[in-house]
Amino acid sequence: MNKYYYTYQEFIKDINSISLPPFDALIAIARGGMTIAHFLAEKFETREVYVINAISYENEKKLGKPKIFNIPNLENKKRVVLIDDISDSGETFVEVKKTLLEKYPNLEVTTLALFYKEKTTLIPDIVLHKSDKWIVFFWDKEGQNVN
Amino acid sequence: MNKYYYTYQEFIKDINSISLPPFDALIAIARGGMTIAHFLAEKFETREVYVINAISYENEKKLGKPKIFNIPNLENKKRVVLIDDISDSGETFVEVKKTLLEKYPNLEVTTLALFYKEKTTLIPDIVLHKSDKWIVFFWDKEGQNVN
Repeated sequence: MNKYYYTYQEFIKDINSISLPPFDALIAIARGGMTIAHFLAEKFETREVYVINAISYENEKKLGKPKIFNIPNLENKKRVVLIDDISDSGETFVEVKKTLLEKYPNLEVTTLALFYKEKTTLIPDIVLHKSDKWIVFFWDKEGQNVN
Repeated sequence: MNKYYYTYQEFIKDINSISLPPFDALIAIARGGMTIAHFLAEKFETREVYVINAISYENEKKLGKPKIFNIPNLENKKRVVLIDDISDSGETFVEVKKTLLEKYPNLEVTTLALFYKEKTTLIPDIVLHKSDKWIVFFWDKEGQNVN
């Protein structure tokens, strides 16, 4: 598959362009959403930034469904923005959202990603780019020394 | 106070220079440690990257002690690296470490930060720079468009 190197410079442009609806907390899906959520929390001046873990692979083997754990405490939160780098198959977003809503049925979840793929089952509510290339993010091991 | 702008380019050099002892999980202190932990997790190819929340300010008012919450599940983990951007007064590291050890008394905690200040009560086990300037990180709101 063709690779696309997503650089820090593009990321800064993207962060600048993002508007968010009113929210009570930002929730990053680890690992992919961590840097984005950090930058958005600083941009929008909130300390309400949490992380949830979702693991789709174990020892190189794809799990049937992502394992989701370390669910943050969202009592008293109503509107959250759920953040990942890419909506690839869409499965991670779908499962994390389901898990959050099982625990907090009244939560309003807005999904946000930088990229989505044609084949995804969940096009994020806020999303910047569509690409069917293999995205190498600047935080990926391979991307860390590219720009 | 003099400001020092810590750029993405310096950060990449720093990430490249970091070696870690054997560990079972990386734990970022939010917000400051999130981007560092993300890059280190990718560099060292681990999905075991968690986040703990520590809040020292509420409505611009400094709290007596940082409020620590969303403690990740560390059952079956022995050695963790606790990550923040800076050890300023040292209080956040001290309190987060104490909280983790109260819940997991046998945990071996290695602390890591990019910067520490002369006055800190906790010089991190792994730390790259000493500075008594006000550090503007590239992920800070003010730093996001500097480089």
